[in-house]
Amino acid sequence: ANAVLSSYGTTIFTVMSKLAQEHGAVNLGQGFPEGLEPPAVLRAAAEAAEGGPHQYPPMMGIPALRQAIAAHDRHFYSLDLDPETEVMVTSGATEALADALFGLIEPGDEVVLIEPLYDSYLPIVRRAGGIPRTVRIEPPDWTLPREALAAAFSDRTKAIILNSPTNPSGTVFDTDELAFIADLVQRHDTYAICDEVYEHLVFDGRRHVPLMTLPGMRDRCVRIGSAGKTFSLTSWKVGYIVAAPALLTPIAKTHQFLTFTTPTCLQTAVAFGLGQDPAVLDQLAVDMAARRDRLATGLRGIGFPVMDCAGTYFLTVDIRGVGFTGTDEEFCRHITVEAGVTAVPVSAFYQDRAAAPPHYARFCFAKLDSALDEAVRRLGQHF
Amino acid sequence: ANAVLSSYGTTIFTVMSKLAQEHGAVNLGQGFPEGLEPPAVLRAAAEAAEGGPHQYPPMMGIPALRQAIAAHDRHFYSLDLDPETEVMVTSGATEALADALFGLIEPGDEVVLIEPLYDSYLPIVRRAGGIPRTVRIEPPDWTLPREALAAAFSDRTKAIILNSPTNPSGTVFDTDELAFIADLVQRHDTYAICDEVYEHLVFDGRRHVPLMTLPGMRDRCVRIGSAGKTFSLTSWKVGYIVAAPALLTPIAKTHQFLTFTTPTCLQTAVAFGLGQDPAVLDQLAVDMAARRDRLATGLRGIGFPVMDCAGTYFLTVDIRGVGFTGTDEEFCRHITVEAGVTAVPVSAFYQDRAAAPPHYARFCFAKLDSALDEAVRRLGQHF
Ligand SMILES: CSCCC(=O)C(=O)O
Ligand SMILES: CSCCC(=O)C(=O)O
Repeated sequence: ANAVLSSYGTTIFTVMSKLAQEHGAVNLGQGFPEGLEPPAVLRAAAEAAEGGPHQYPPMMGIPALRQAIAAHDRHFYSLDLDPETEVMVTSGATEALADALFGLIEPGDEVVLIEPLYDSYLPIVRRAGGIPRTVRIEPPDWTLPREALAAAFSDRTKAIILNSPTNPSGTVFDTDELAFIADLVQRHDTYAICDEVYEHLVFDGRRHVPLMTLPGMRDRCVRIGSAGKTFSLTSWKVGYIVAAPALLTPIAKTHQFLTFTTPTCLQTAVAFGLGQDPAVLDQLAVDMAARRDRLATGLRGIGFPVMDCAGTYFLTVDIRGVGFTGTDEEFCRHITVEAGVTAVPVSAFYQDRAAAPPHYARFCFAKLDSALDEAVRRLGQHF
Repeated sequence: ANAVLSSYGTTIFTVMSKLAQEHGAVNLGQGFPEGLEPPAVLRAAAEAAEGGPHQYPPMMGIPALRQAIAAHDRHFYSLDLDPETEVMVTSGATEALADALFGLIEPGDEVVLIEPLYDSYLPIVRRAGGIPRTVRIEPPDWTLPREALAAAFSDRTKAIILNSPTNPSGTVFDTDELAFIADLVQRHDTYAICDEVYEHLVFDGRRHVPLMTLPGMRDRCVRIGSAGKTFSLTSWKVGYIVAAPALLTPIAKTHQFLTFTTPTCLQTAVAFGLGQDPAVLDQLAVDMAARRDRLATGLRGIGFPVMDCAGTYFLTVDIRGVGFTGTDEEFCRHITVEAGVTAVPVSAFYQDRAAAPPHYARFCFAKLDSALDEAVRRLGQHF
């Protein structure tokens, strides 16, 4: 068996979801939303599933969806993309990321990563032959460590992977931080692979700013989006990549050989969804911010210091606030088993867990009010 | 950009399908079926697309589908599989193959391949760090070159990729050939990655025999199937892998990071389809054999020598039969442009096209009778 991949355990999301199920816990671990699936988009999928077409769509995605993605990026970001050569549909954002890394990395290339990070980044960078150079942001402020980031870039840097809004920290890099990153990318003549799956989950009147829209970055960025996140349908596994042709061409080669295409009926429904009034996507952020506030208020009431959350589905809390003295992993197991509420340990998002901040847990607030209230009730009773 | 992946061109199927469209040709190039989509399976997908669930399914696949796959393999092959640890759902057979190769190969491992081969094999073997060792079968007999195959195995062999029924040759390895391969795999203590996507497209009363069912092979085979092929729904991209736990574990690690999961609504519908009377799958082979015979008769009538076809969607013909003196690639372009019928060149399935058999073209017969008849009419008029 391949040594790189075998060295990784079962993903923390699966481990904690299983434990939650075993203990009948309210699962605020794995990041997926409840009760927000848009009925008209579901209807469109059902119609396409029954009505067809049912045979291979084009490898790059159906034209209707590629056009809808280009229109989306024009509306929200004033990006001017050619749907023929600069947009590709993928089987989820996870595949999009794998396509980008296998397509761009030559063995020995360095890739800059910011911890905490999503769990597929490191295994795929390594399996693609890349050498990870990680810097870290840390609670409670999660500020970009500019010096360390500058030092992580070198002549051998092929790309940086940038996830903003950031899972699990709930932070959104501001334009000053983005400009700093853009400058490094340009000075080292390298690329940015931008995991922007939470682009429509930015709160409090802010708008997501793709790194791709900064001066000089149009042709240096691989922008990855997720219909699963945008339409609250995480089981659909429809993602997309936008990038300049010179970048998208080798990435499309990877897609051709990794999955080849993505189910037509779901592509059709996502194209329909993106064709609706874009105001529904702004509404998603409003609804989700209300959930964030509901959970944050409840957790603060119990005694947890709750970090600021500008985007994503996630709140992070300091577990010492309720007098818990063990690690974050022990905390997450403890509350699942003893209180009937599941969270995930923030240290799981760092490469070297022993050196990670050990006192923070991530709660997903993208749930029904009833679930959030019950979780708060249970935790309040326990602590 | 990565050099291995960049070195491959656009897949021949896309190139020829595009040319077919431009010239209004009857497209017997790309391998997908017409008019065989099972309405009850489509209905099941539509219901699940609307009714949910809509959030992440388990990484290995939904239990109902894993159980249905195990039951399928018990019914057809008397295989006794544990759906918990020996069955995984993938986003198509192409992903299944990538999972297997990235999960099993260590850089420097050798992989034995038989040409002609499906177009993702070589790029993925190479990108995974494997060293391809190819042997070839050739028209008109396509017999297994036993000496060359034995010589291709070495101490460094990690696996053989075996595609039977074979695309594009339409051959099915017989039990004697399978036993020869099984013996090599065991003697070299290696594995077989078995691309069996055409398992239900074996004709004339024969039954598909998985290499996995041969003595000593149960724990050495990775068996890959495709719901797209089994239910004539190639846009669905639902595949599966069955393998012993020691093999499936590293492969599942790859799946976790390449796509993570496969759309729930399509998994639900495939589980429904596999739960139907298995006789419908035997009927598929009967219907498809009638199409094969219809096209073969027509092509023979025009003067093409048509090779035997025991399985798959494909007939291969000798283009010299109609006096064509150019290469197979020239032939395929010629008939698309001049006769309005598209086929694909068999040489495209060999690594070194210059050394490939240059006089054979592949026609897909999985089409409506009207399309087959029109193709024969057009070719008959032209030659
Ligand atoms: C891929 S399962 C996890 C979903 C997610 O994005 C998260 O919980 O962080
Ligand atoms: C992946 S597109 C090609 C479909 C196919 O299996 C073939 O035509 O050989």
